[in-house]
Amino acid sequence: MIIGTDHIGMAVSDLEAGIKLYRDTLGLDFGGIEEVEGQRVRVAFFRAGDTRIELLESTDEDGPIARHIASRGEGIHHIAFLVRDIDEALLFLSKKGMRLIDRDPVEGAHGMRVAFLHPKSTSGVLIEICQKPDC
Amino acid sequence: MIIGTDHIGMAVSDLEAGIKLYRDTLGLDFGGIEEVEGQRVRVAFFRAGDTRIELLESTDEDGPIARHIASRGEGIHHIAFLVRDIDEALLFLSKKGMRLIDRDPVEGAHGMRVAFLHPKSTSGVLIEICQKPDC
Repeated sequence: MIIGTDHIGMAVSDLEAGIKLYRDTLGLDFGGIEEVEGQRVRVAFFRAGDTRIELLESTDEDGPIARHIASRGEGIHHIAFLVRDIDEALLFLSKKGMRLIDRDPVEGAHGMRVAFLHPKSTSGVLIEICQKPDC
Repeated sequence: MIIGTDHIGMAVSDLEAGIKLYRDTLGLDFGGIEEVEGQRVRVAFFRAGDTRIELLESTDEDGPIARHIASRGEGIHHIAFLVRDIDEALLFLSKKGMRLIDRDPVEGAHGMRVAFLHPKSTSGVLIEICQKPDC
């Protein structure tokens, strides 16, 4: 079902400070910034091999990233696995008894179709599955 | 400096339950189990594209993974970036003012040379850098 690790999302309170760290200190390729209104975040993208790093800064003090930082501080927020067919994957996971946050895919950054699995089903890890728009 | 994302480490309290989730439900390729005495963990390996998932179960109730789970629960523990020359990378990061947990590399799983950066320098993310033994 999973064909790769698409990205790791990091919750940050200051996107510009995060960009300095990942671009200037760690030397990752910086791929720009995008605002994802549905998730209420500004996202900075970096490439680290075949996987991307996404820094997520909340645009809304009551958004999911702001709430995550308020309760747990900055840090790794989620891991996103790439699938070929997200509808089929969600159906399969649902049949396996997994709790889904999104029963149907929603739009993510880069026009991806994405859905989150509930950490209660995944040993505490917020897992996103995503499908490229051209699949 | 960084040439790829080597793995993402997940702190789990029950390695066998984690293996069922990642192998049987998510369908990742399972690569076996290794005990890493220096880190006081049993580690289960999975492949997800060019990146690995490592499930970490503590072998010591006072080990770093046991303490992490006691304070923060199960979940994503760290991200590991692959570098060509870990000694050079640590020197560079130290000169940049980064706080290092390991000033010198220690032995990790698969005979890798690894070192951790302190989350206080990295917006709350526990970052490992690692070098393959054959480099």
